Amino acid sequence: MSVSDPQWLSADERSAWLALTGLLVRLPGALDNQLERDAGLSFFEYMVLAMLAEQQDQTLRMSALAELTNGSLSRLSHVVRRLESQGLVRRETCQEDRRATNAILTAGGRDRVDAAAPGHVQHARELVVDAVAPEDLATFGRVAWQILDRLGGWQRT
Amino acid sequence: MSVSDPQWLSADERSAWLALTGLLVRLPGALDNQLERDAGLSFFEYMVLAMLAEQQDQTLRMSALAELTNGSLSRLSHVVRRLESQGLVRRETCQEDRRATNAILTAGGRDRVDAAAPGHVQHARELVVDAVAPEDLATFGRVAWQILDRLGGWQRT
Repeated sequence: MSVSDPQWLSADERSAWLALTGLLVRLPGALDNQLERDAGLSFFEYMVLAMLAEQQDQTLRMSALAELTNGSLSRLSHVVRRLESQGLVRRETCQEDRRATNAILTAGGRDRVDAAAPGHVQHARELVVDAVAPEDLATFGRVAWQILDRLGGWQRT
Repeated sequence: MSVSDPQWLSADERSAWLALTGLLVRLPGALDNQLERDAGLSFFEYMVLAMLAEQQDQTLRMSALAELTNGSLSRLSHVVRRLESQGLVRRETCQEDRRATNAILTAGGRDRVDAAAPGHVQHARELVVDAVAPEDLATFGRVAWQILDRLGGWQRT
């Protein structure tokens, strides 16, 4: 199909597309607002801390952390520097690969994300998880993973 | 349920939630990149022009345009000012309600969005519409509208 002969969306396709793009425009602000208000963190900062907290040694290579948070390495570096300045994360050279950098959650960072998690999970339930029938949520998640696969340059882990 | 006694997500719920938040982090940049590269427009700018182009008189009240693009009125005002400075949109007082402002697509704005639309639709097909089985896309869209309804303060039109 050439761009000069576009295949326009059907009414059903258009509805799904507009709903998805509506989420892209509206949901990030809602997530940021709840976390900023209740925990002083942006959603992306929360995700960085939460992914580190799930590791047994509270440590991830920056490249792995970028994948888990869907962020580019440059965006992640910026956010980790800010978290580091607040004492929530520290960075050090990876001992196994000295070209790589590890991000490590500090005790203070662990306290912060532990305090933030219940409110964030409750918000996720209110907006999405408890608002949707389980079988619909499963389909929704499966489609979202398909789209992430299409976006490429990133591996599900 | 109190925040002090959080109901954590199940594995399935967590997977769907992480996929959704992955889309929030990754998809906007992909949409912006294609449109910036091929049409010199952000995704939000494109949506503003496209929603005006769908009106018979190429005109919408700013409040209606904010709803259709999911943007806040302040964000929309900022973007419309930028589009106005490029000659793609103009604003004038609504004749039926002089407290309201209309946004009107100019002929140049119409040309710009007409030129951008085929590439954007093709990109939407590649990333989402053609990547997903029709029945799954329908469920996905229905769930996304449910979430938008939960976000409130905005009416589907």
